[in-house]
Amino acid sequence: MLGIGGFTPLEGFMTHADWQGVCDGMRMASGLFWPIPITVSTDGATAAAFHTGNDIALADPDDGTILATMKVTEKYRINKAHECATVFRTADLEHPGVKMVMEQGEVNLAGPVKVLSQGGFPERYGPLFMTPAQTRTAFEANGWSTVAAFQTRNPMHRSHEYLAKVAIEVCDGVLVHSLLGNLKPGDIPAEVRTRAIALLIDQYFGKNTVVQAGYPLDMRYAGPREALLHALFRQNYGCSHLIVGRDHAGVGNYYGPFDAHHIFDEIPRDALQTRPLKIDWTFWCYRCGGMASARTCPHGEKDRLLVSGTKLRKWLSEGDAVPAEFSRPEVLDILREYYAGLDARDKVEVKLSGHSAR
Amino acid sequence: MLGIGGFTPLEGFMTHADWQGVCDGMRMASGLFWPIPITVSTDGATAAAFHTGNDIALADPDDGTILATMKVTEKYRINKAHECATVFRTADLEHPGVKMVMEQGEVNLAGPVKVLSQGGFPERYGPLFMTPAQTRTAFEANGWSTVAAFQTRNPMHRSHEYLAKVAIEVCDGVLVHSLLGNLKPGDIPAEVRTRAIALLIDQYFGKNTVVQAGYPLDMRYAGPREALLHALFRQNYGCSHLIVGRDHAGVGNYYGPFDAHHIFDEIPRDALQTRPLKIDWTFWCYRCGGMASARTCPHGEKDRLLVSGTKLRKWLSEGDAVPAEFSRPEVLDILREYYAGLDARDKVEVKLSGHSAR
Repeated sequence: MLGIGGFTPLEGFMTHADWQGVCDGMRMASGLFWPIPITVSTDGATAAAFHTGNDIALADPDDGTILATMKVTEKYRINKAHECATVFRTADLEHPGVKMVMEQGEVNLAGPVKVLSQGGFPERYGPLFMTPAQTRTAFEANGWSTVAAFQTRNPMHRSHEYLAKVAIEVCDGVLVHSLLGNLKPGDIPAEVRTRAIALLIDQYFGKNTVVQAGYPLDMRYAGPREALLHALFRQNYGCSHLIVGRDHAGVGNYYGPFDAHHIFDEIPRDALQTRPLKIDWTFWCYRCGGMASARTCPHGEKDRLLVSGTKLRKWLSEGDAVPAEFSRPEVLDILREYYAGLDARDKVEVKLSGHSAR
Repeated sequence: MLGIGGFTPLEGFMTHADWQGVCDGMRMASGLFWPIPITVSTDGATAAAFHTGNDIALADPDDGTILATMKVTEKYRINKAHECATVFRTADLEHPGVKMVMEQGEVNLAGPVKVLSQGGFPERYGPLFMTPAQTRTAFEANGWSTVAAFQTRNPMHRSHEYLAKVAIEVCDGVLVHSLLGNLKPGDIPAEVRTRAIALLIDQYFGKNTVVQAGYPLDMRYAGPREALLHALFRQNYGCSHLIVGRDHAGVGNYYGPFDAHHIFDEIPRDALQTRPLKIDWTFWCYRCGGMASARTCPHGEKDRLLVSGTKLRKWLSEGDAVPAEFSRPEVLDILREYYAGLDARDKVEVKLSGHSAR
């Protein structure tokens, strides 16, 4: 994100003063609005091996590829619990973002970064991996001046299609922006997800109303603070709006369903140019005879089609019919194929490990 | 509209200089943005009977009630064809707005107006007749800061419900604002229309998302220029947005379907505070399985449910079923009752006039 201009105007990883200001008041030492610390850490022994002023290399933890060089301007320790309390509003280790912070190295390193590699994303995702300069160029080529970003880490069912289409009714276009970074275990991988989304756009969206792209960032599940980060970097991608649904970037029950809506009213008006398109929970309502949100449908839960992720996976794995009011058949076909592959692998693994009774 | 603050900051009927500036460049002599002349006229003999500086009474043409007094500051003749060419973009007498201008008196009177009566609207429409101060108070009581006006002179079918609901998804609320002035012959009267709309709101809209009200103004069918007037007076009613659909305030084929969208981009950015919510033609699409607009649905006309006014009236008069995807059954019941009454009256009139063979 630093290398492709997603985090402009950051030039590298944050200093202790930046970290403190961002945790406490969402401001860097320079006064720049920023909602979540962008830091890099290492263990104490590694940090002790070099001095501030040194240039160091940052490598991919998986394959050792050198991704960037960094001039270390500061080494500092943080109060991790303080970061968790301010950013995640909890110190519970069950929270995946808290776990990530608590498990990171003991020493943070600050300094400007020179990015050398895009970390395999362009090779892996091809034209789906677009830099902010590329999305801005695409919007300009389409003649769009208002563009809403639809942030997704899941395949798009009809509730997500409805969110995107409300945005298309009131903006020039939508950027369906898939997270290509790390997710929680059990989430649908980006390759499957983006293929299902591409088919949905092709079959159910108007020509030249959608750009699909992906961005290289992990989820933090920081709820309201992450909604602000999602809006902030969409500004760099050229988006005028960010669709913010119910419990945006949340996990479990750590955040109120509308905390990520309210926080946009709690920051100074000039902190962000990208504005939220706040939309409530969306679903098919049988009495409305259409898609709706909890704002536009006056009926009760019994009239609404509600499908949990667990129920959907069960339906798909067991070959049961999924209501067309919940998801498009073309999307369901891709997910069925994915789950069938998973189940086959599960069975193979089960056999190899000898648990044939399962 | 002058008396209730709908046309604030106008203090009365326009002078010749105002009229000229509004026709030619949508600016009054003071520089104030205004898209359509607001003038009063009389015949030459009546005008000759008094002098500028006189106070005159303005009376209801139907029952003679004194509605206002006016200090006449100027008497002037206009080039009616010029008003028609600039405001209506046509001089065709088939155009109802052109006809109205061409048939008005030969002399226009300018001057400040003191309004004495609301012309029977409060008595006739009760709480539905709301002044701009009243709608602003209602919005404030609801805690709304963004409100979209939905301009209507027709009952609301699902395509209109969809427009209003898109606005509710992105604004705090919607003002369903019915014209209570004069319409074309054959249009549904305001009493029937507003009753059908009230039932629709009650059964199909979320609580506290809609205010229904009416305003006392005749249609001019001036298409794009009238869309600007509709936005301008909604500013006085406290609306941040005006929903502008396809061929807004148009009639026949005098205007391109999106002329009323484009004109908002052709005026200076600071001319109007109330912004357009531009939405394309809306309908039920069988392949989408939902309401959509020509922007959000990629399918063809054969997949869309299109019902002309003539076809609907035929269905309703003859007791045929109307698809639930076109209109809500509760709305259709009210319209069926209205058309049944009309047909009964038609039959009585036919019998009285002796054309029993018809």
